[in-house]
Amino acid sequence: MKLASLKNGQRDGRLVVVSRDLSRAVDAAPVAATMRDLIEQWDALSPRLAVLYGALNAGKATGAFAFDAREAMAPLPRSHQFVDASAFLNHGDIMERAYNLTVKKTPGIPILVPRQGDDFRGPTDDYEFPAEADQCDFEGEFAVITDDVPMGISAAEAGRHIKLITILNDVSMRGHLTRELQMGFGLVQAKPATVFAPVAVTPDELGDAWRGSRVHLDMKVTRNGQWFGHPNGREMDFGFDEMIAHMAYNRRLGAGFVLGSGTVSNKDHRTVGSACLAERRAVETIDSGAATTGFMKFGETLRFDAVDAQGQSVFGAIDFRLVPAANSSKAGA
Amino acid sequence: MKLASLKNGQRDGRLVVVSRDLSRAVDAAPVAATMRDLIEQWDALSPRLAVLYGALNAGKATGAFAFDAREAMAPLPRSHQFVDASAFLNHGDIMERAYNLTVKKTPGIPILVPRQGDDFRGPTDDYEFPAEADQCDFEGEFAVITDDVPMGISAAEAGRHIKLITILNDVSMRGHLTRELQMGFGLVQAKPATVFAPVAVTPDELGDAWRGSRVHLDMKVTRNGQWFGHPNGREMDFGFDEMIAHMAYNRRLGAGFVLGSGTVSNKDHRTVGSACLAERRAVETIDSGAATTGFMKFGETLRFDAVDAQGQSVFGAIDFRLVPAANSSKAGA
Repeated sequence: MKLASLKNGQRDGRLVVVSRDLSRAVDAAPVAATMRDLIEQWDALSPRLAVLYGALNAGKATGAFAFDAREAMAPLPRSHQFVDASAFLNHGDIMERAYNLTVKKTPGIPILVPRQGDDFRGPTDDYEFPAEADQCDFEGEFAVITDDVPMGISAAEAGRHIKLITILNDVSMRGHLTRELQMGFGLVQAKPATVFAPVAVTPDELGDAWRGSRVHLDMKVTRNGQWFGHPNGREMDFGFDEMIAHMAYNRRLGAGFVLGSGTVSNKDHRTVGSACLAERRAVETIDSGAATTGFMKFGETLRFDAVDAQGQSVFGAIDFRLVPAANSSKAGA
Repeated sequence: MKLASLKNGQRDGRLVVVSRDLSRAVDAAPVAATMRDLIEQWDALSPRLAVLYGALNAGKATGAFAFDAREAMAPLPRSHQFVDASAFLNHGDIMERAYNLTVKKTPGIPILVPRQGDDFRGPTDDYEFPAEADQCDFEGEFAVITDDVPMGISAAEAGRHIKLITILNDVSMRGHLTRELQMGFGLVQAKPATVFAPVAVTPDELGDAWRGSRVHLDMKVTRNGQWFGHPNGREMDFGFDEMIAHMAYNRRLGAGFVLGSGTVSNKDHRTVGSACLAERRAVETIDSGAATTGFMKFGETLRFDAVDAQGQSVFGAIDFRLVPAANSSKAGA
């Protein structure tokens, strides 16, 4: 099943079921008005939406209309808990090598970065930020959304709480990252609002591409229409299930918990490229002593898409433009 | 005005207006069913509740009933954005001195710790955690709740978005803290669910005790019925307004944003005591070379209260017991 939240002037939007080929949609309202309503009562409501999804794909859903990603908010427009992992250790290894850093990792323990869930962005919305000096970067990632997760569960049990999968762009301001990492308490100005794909899908939609609680799809990243990279999600060093279990060790996770994978990164990065600027800049630094790829400027565009074996977009594309914030005179700090 | 959310089997509870002396309450439902509804439309709805509050205090509210803090959830039972500061630098100074640490702070930049908003706890609920070896601690704090905050605003503007004030206990598991601080990406297992007072109040309720975007009240902390400390909120090194402006530099803050002060800590700590175990243990270490105060054990109780000049509790007390998690066989990690 594929789902999206359309803009309707409300904070949580209007839930729609989207056809497998992303061309058509139909209101989910008879069953659930918002994605929040659905994820909070997933087991009770999702079977009824699955019936609607079947009808939509068969061209038999009453009231179906053309699906337009420009009308989409994030699939879950806000969350009470968003944590972004850094689960592709290859990415960290490249960064540490390039910049002579050492992250004090503990074997078997994932890097998990608590984040904010109140300002998720739709896939095609202009993205405002105050200053190019903040060193705007992107990170193409896979993400999962869970229902209620009890405290203390195992990874195997945690996996069963993964109800939806999508992709996101973890917009990052590198100019604030070193200061905040050195302070050691978490990331604020380095990690502002996150941009999501228009559609979230149930794990069964991925078929064999959902294995080991990892998404075995290429993350195709384009900057200003030019190829930037297409690393694959299969090399994630921790499964989403393991990371959820780590999170839930001593807390409950509320329905609508969003967990990001961290920027997708492959050992074969010289062939497949990267899903973030910082990694490409690190490779350039390792190779030639200096980074030549610049950070994002106002007016530039970014596109993220993940396609299946038939070349069909699975989640729809994130495809947006960076613009100066209306209120951008205040100096960065 | 004073407000609380009572348990009704729903995730967001049932909003009530509470009398100034905390003895009586009346349903807010004719105006706003939940605190979420209220904070998202504060300017439109709060004047109508203020009228109800006046009637309640005058003994003239229809349908008023006895207020029982045991029925209370957190005033805002969940939030899309909870950030906890460490705004009393005195606390950090003591910790660094005792343990020979150095936090790489930048002058003028507050420590802000992104946290989770999906598992706020009511003031008297038993608090489950998996293992005493996790070194359970507490941190008595003041906190504010805002309505929608635009990107890029000044501290003066930010202050006007502070709609409610309350207190919280930032439950901390010190056994996981060093590992997560050293990793540098934020706190997960070290900072599980947070416990809130039963009542949140508008700033005007504090009178002169709300000055400089700081709460000039003693935080009275009791462990197993015995005095532990009563440091005052006035020594906060950053105002809530400054910290909100720092947060909003490059993001919007959604209505219901919760910002904690960090553990209340005073320079005169030898007289007024501390609001957390770690600080007392640090003082013991500085004084005698070793900490003698132990971390929390299952069955122990904690109480946090802030009283006004007349000795009246302002927010109601956090008063709860620590218990083993039902599912606590899993080893800490």
